Amino acid sequence: MTATAAQQASADQIGEGTSVVSSPEEAPAVRPVDVPALLERGRSLCTPVMREAISRLAPPMDRVSAYHFGWTDAEGRPTEGDSGKAVRPALALISALAAGAPAEIGIPGGVAVELVHNFSLLHDDLMDGDEQRRHRATVWTVFGPAQAILVGDAMFALANEVLLEAADKGGASAVDAGRAVQRLTLATRKLIDGQAQDLAFEQRDRVTVAECLEMEGNKTGALLAASASVGAVLAGMDDAGADALERYGYHLGLAFQAVDDLLGIWGATEVTGKPNFGDLRQRKKSLPVSAALAEGGPASLRLAELLADPEGRGHEDEEQLAARAALIEEAGGRAWTADEARRQHKTALAALDEVPMPAGVREQFAALAEFVVVRER
Amino acid sequence: MTATAAQQASADQIGEGTSVVSSPEEAPAVRPVDVPALLERGRSLCTPVMREAISRLAPPMDRVSAYHFGWTDAEGRPTEGDSGKAVRPALALISALAAGAPAEIGIPGGVAVELVHNFSLLHDDLMDGDEQRRHRATVWTVFGPAQAILVGDAMFALANEVLLEAADKGGASAVDAGRAVQRLTLATRKLIDGQAQDLAFEQRDRVTVAECLEMEGNKTGALLAASASVGAVLAGMDDAGADALERYGYHLGLAFQAVDDLLGIWGATEVTGKPNFGDLRQRKKSLPVSAALAEGGPASLRLAELLADPEGRGHEDEEQLAARAALIEEAGGRAWTADEARRQHKTALAALDEVPMPAGVREQFAALAEFVVVRER
Repeated sequence: MTATAAQQASADQIGEGTSVVSSPEEAPAVRPVDVPALLERGRSLCTPVMREAISRLAPPMDRVSAYHFGWTDAEGRPTEGDSGKAVRPALALISALAAGAPAEIGIPGGVAVELVHNFSLLHDDLMDGDEQRRHRATVWTVFGPAQAILVGDAMFALANEVLLEAADKGGASAVDAGRAVQRLTLATRKLIDGQAQDLAFEQRDRVTVAECLEMEGNKTGALLAASASVGAVLAGMDDAGADALERYGYHLGLAFQAVDDLLGIWGATEVTGKPNFGDLRQRKKSLPVSAALAEGGPASLRLAELLADPEGRGHEDEEQLAARAALIEEAGGRAWTADEARRQHKTALAALDEVPMPAGVREQFAALAEFVVVRER
Repeated sequence: MTATAAQQASADQIGEGTSVVSSPEEAPAVRPVDVPALLERGRSLCTPVMREAISRLAPPMDRVSAYHFGWTDAEGRPTEGDSGKAVRPALALISALAAGAPAEIGIPGGVAVELVHNFSLLHDDLMDGDEQRRHRATVWTVFGPAQAILVGDAMFALANEVLLEAADKGGASAVDAGRAVQRLTLATRKLIDGQAQDLAFEQRDRVTVAECLEMEGNKTGALLAASASVGAVLAGMDDAGADALERYGYHLGLAFQAVDDLLGIWGATEVTGKPNFGDLRQRKKSLPVSAALAEGGPASLRLAELLADPEGRGHEDEEQLAARAALIEEAGGRAWTADEARRQHKTALAALDEVPMPAGVREQFAALAEFVVVRER
């Protein structure tokens, strides 16, 4: 399937026949942007710096990291790994361009946000007991919980180390490197707050849509906000401009997460690599569920009843989960979430209008936003 | 027992009748320094800022932190807790004085190093499976592993957040706040490297004295180095001066750790709150053990034999452990480690001579060093 066909299939699947993203006339593309090339630029410029940074870690943390990133297998043999989409480094480089600087100025920023992202994956997988990530066994299952904790800690520290070196190596001023660390630190704190909220929500039968949006903004929005601004900050963009880029990234994150919540219930297992109705099985308090519970009609009330029932918790079969998915849809949770993805996507693009940037850069941000929102995994 | 009597008792116990620290004529004290007052200054200036910072954390991380610091019990009721000696904040404030600034300039630094220290305690206790800290149940045993991971992460992030605010709030320049974060980040990476080495050593029958010193320098020296320099860096001291203060803190950390290793075998349980021969029970590769194994005489060889024997591992009784302690002593491991504490203490004091500082400040550093080295818990 070509990328475009896949995107269309995904849009059909998620948006029930309507694309999740804004229609073409709302998102003017002056010229087509090659999204795979944007992602490849992020990967090819940031990966060597990332590998050098990881090589500084004391054994066996270097080896555990290489496994986590998909560079090697559990025995340390090189593999053709899948390191993920690498959207964050791509955004960091575009944000340097937005400040009128070369993409390269954003490299330490791209490496730093990717390190923070992977620090949170290592710790979250352990806290959540998740055994699979990117179709591979998670670090804590292969190397034990201590290595997952320790390597996560090391990546977090390394993120700031790399960012502060941006000044030493002449790419950014010391003041701008400090500003970048400060913004990344606040984003990381939000990321941690979001994980705390996510864990707390697991103990509850329901959460409001507002609580869910706050948690998702912390867990996903904050780091995408930092990704979309870090290169610009390193290049000296003022705080007002950087704030606008952060808003783009934040709302993009919320759009991304809304799509993720839809895929978590209605995504095709063979594409997502996750079990059918996975989020329902885990009783995740995602947007479709929260929106459905807030609606208050008969399907909504029936869903609330089922979720509050302690009987059979965790032992629901495929048929029972399918019935819940149908109730969520009937109560409007699916449609509301698809609408929310569209709204957040639109808000993200609107934020870009507040920042003057060189010709063509806005289109790169817009193309990446469309890629993130219209996807099937 | 008075503080002085306790110190003397400790010196007798550790140094086999000879004080661990340099004799008075080697450490000239122009006037007596009130160490409890130095510690109290650190606590009273830093604790309010620490409490405000902790209050920013999303629930239940704020409550878990308050328990960890001994401010509340597990149910959240205020307690007269023991938050530890608070040597690090005290050092941070003295280092601000060393740069000719008021002690208050060092406050964000003192809070930051204490946050990093506690981040590492939270994670290490979980990794090491330690159930007790400061005579109380550790966070992971009370609130679960996920909270120990998450709250540790949050404290690490908060450390940089507080330090970078030093610039916003006018106490330090943005450049100096960035320098402070960079030094603290490198120290934290060493701390993590040290824990990785410590975990790796557990899998081995023996480690060399050099490996042991490197691990202890990372685990204890690096953060004391940052503590002893962070206030000076915030106050604008140049890198050469800050490096010298770091050397003082680093060697002080090694002296501290040598004493800790002695107490871990020969410390009195009723004072340390730890089991008799605790480090031998855990087969910890501490300095006395490494030094004894390196000696190569009959006692050394017998010790190596016992440690390499897989039989009865972890089931040694009090008598067997006492016999091992006697072998370590016979092979010179106890005397070597006490000498090493003296050497490191002396090297720490010598580093202070490289930095010009206002009258009386050197004496505060020296008094704190003596307090750290001559102790019984």
